[in-house]
Amino acid sequence: MTLDSSSIERVRIDDLIAAIQPAHRADVAAVRARLDALAKPRGSLGVLEDIALRLACITGDPPPPLRRRRILVFAADHGVAARGVSAYPAEVTRQMCALFVHGGAAINVLARAAGADVTVVDVGVDSPAGTLPGVLTRKVRGGTRDFVTGAALTTGEVECALHVGFEAVRDAAAGADIIALGDMGIGNTTSAAAVTAGLTGAAAAEVVGSGTGIDEARMLVKREIVARAAARLGGRRDPRFVLAQVGGLEIAAIAGATLGAAAAGIPVVADGFIVTAGILAAIRLCPPAGDYVFASHRSAEPGHDIQLAALGLRPVLHMDLRLGEGTGAALALPIIDAAGAVLREMASLRAAGVSGGNDRDAS
Amino acid sequence: MTLDSSSIERVRIDDLIAAIQPAHRADVAAVRARLDALAKPRGSLGVLEDIALRLACITGDPPPPLRRRRILVFAADHGVAARGVSAYPAEVTRQMCALFVHGGAAINVLARAAGADVTVVDVGVDSPAGTLPGVLTRKVRGGTRDFVTGAALTTGEVECALHVGFEAVRDAAAGADIIALGDMGIGNTTSAAAVTAGLTGAAAAEVVGSGTGIDEARMLVKREIVARAAARLGGRRDPRFVLAQVGGLEIAAIAGATLGAAAAGIPVVADGFIVTAGILAAIRLCPPAGDYVFASHRSAEPGHDIQLAALGLRPVLHMDLRLGEGTGAALALPIIDAAGAVLREMASLRAAGVSGGNDRDAS
Repeated sequence: MTLDSSSIERVRIDDLIAAIQPAHRADVAAVRARLDALAKPRGSLGVLEDIALRLACITGDPPPPLRRRRILVFAADHGVAARGVSAYPAEVTRQMCALFVHGGAAINVLARAAGADVTVVDVGVDSPAGTLPGVLTRKVRGGTRDFVTGAALTTGEVECALHVGFEAVRDAAAGADIIALGDMGIGNTTSAAAVTAGLTGAAAAEVVGSGTGIDEARMLVKREIVARAAARLGGRRDPRFVLAQVGGLEIAAIAGATLGAAAAGIPVVADGFIVTAGILAAIRLCPPAGDYVFASHRSAEPGHDIQLAALGLRPVLHMDLRLGEGTGAALALPIIDAAGAVLREMASLRAAGVSGGNDRDAS
Repeated sequence: MTLDSSSIERVRIDDLIAAIQPAHRADVAAVRARLDALAKPRGSLGVLEDIALRLACITGDPPPPLRRRRILVFAADHGVAARGVSAYPAEVTRQMCALFVHGGAAINVLARAAGADVTVVDVGVDSPAGTLPGVLTRKVRGGTRDFVTGAALTTGEVECALHVGFEAVRDAAAGADIIALGDMGIGNTTSAAAVTAGLTGAAAAEVVGSGTGIDEARMLVKREIVARAAARLGGRRDPRFVLAQVGGLEIAAIAGATLGAAAAGIPVVADGFIVTAGILAAIRLCPPAGDYVFASHRSAEPGHDIQLAALGLRPVLHMDLRLGEGTGAALALPIIDAAGAVLREMASLRAAGVSGGNDRDAS
């Protein structure tokens, strides 16, 4: 379905949100009892057990193999990039989209390594429609307005972008067991920092990092921009308002994609700072959607910790990644699938004839 | 080759150590320049780039795919287990070995998820030879002596166990691109804690954790045992002496396996606290072998951090695993392979026609 205003009217985001259910396909206590009975000390697989439990709630226990893995990379440009907040010129957004289609970018390499397919969604790249062959064109507009001088997006544009993400996942979900989210957009750590400050109340200094690797002078500019933007929000934390004022089109689409995964009842994997900003907006719009979200890595961006804490998510990979594109999410896909395999394939202590322990947590 | 004293005489460990070369199949500066030229901000793949660089030094640049993955689980019993330092009875070592062969243990599940094969090596399980079908029998003796009352092993037994590990990897290396190490042995966190204290000078309180999940009373016993054992070592850090006094047969075999991987010139992946104790002993015996070792996860055991710091290794997974068996190493195998794929498959900025940045680290 191509995006137009009529489709937005047909399916309103609020109706979609209202239909989202908490993950309830397995009983938490029953899954936990099964994990505890497996041939290992209780809790000794740590976070892998938490992932297994949450996966079972989404898919049923035992979770089926997550064979069909889809990475959706949402791309858009940012008016604020003109202020020199990135080490790269804005044209790199378009150039990288071409590379994603060609297959030579980091996300392509890591997707192949994880047995995943990559779909690139242009939700707002500053290029004429049709100039990015192989990219799914869902352009809401050719980038945001500079949020230093006013709102980045209209409320209608935010709805459109949410809808783009929602539909992209709905369409992908028919052929996917798990969805990973990625981003591309020069300038988008600045927008993600402002969104994070807006949604959590964190100070600019806490959420502004070096992004692609900027120097101290640019960092000061970036921090000042985020601080002023956050001040303009006046403490109002409504996700749609925050996204319109300081958001990015890919960030709003990622929020929509998160809602789409929850609506489709499939697991969705966060990436770094940009993707998690979108996910945070989604969960603020619809808390039950949080049941479907898995963290992947802990980014080198300082604001990522604040987002993860706000979401109560714990990343499994600590690798100082700061690339985006979905690279950390791709690396985590096999780990999430392996967690499901624990519930699917491990023997119980009793079945294996292994003597029980008197471990600390035993009842 | 079945282990006997004649084989030990034929190939002495010191001769093997002397033949180990630093990893030198690629030029560090050249690989780093290639990583910097790829289509991404410089350094933005974080630890994945460090892994790629180290892998290239072992295998040549670009690293070939690590398709044939072999997990070696070394199993042995511990005299000190009779003192109630574990939540499980000693017979569980033997029972778990049977489960490894049957395929229902956590390591089997995670090995299958990582596309790896598992080989179990009995280097000292307290069971009659031949009672563990499917397990490679290389029994040096049926468990260590209780190290509270004297040395756990003779120096000859340490040499034998080192040799078992060395040969197991040498035999596996012909059909493996990467080796992951695992352990099984009730009581072995106590031995690993004493080995770690002995090799690093750390205090017992720093290296003693809850292992399989013991209560506070057992923890006090364990800490006291490790403190007394460490005191008995009298500050002497010679790895063979430490292994003989307080070591485990599987820990010594893991040390030998690490040397074997370095001698064969293939990458070897650490697991948690037990495996890393063995690796630490190996690197103290032969510092150049460190070039071949990759950390996988950061264990819930407090002493693991001390080991990793002593080795200068950085784990990628933070999942509070405390099972052993090689489970964390198995989870990390796809990540290490993915790092190699970055050097093999990613386009350069120039080839991709992507505009360069003025990132902070650029020259």
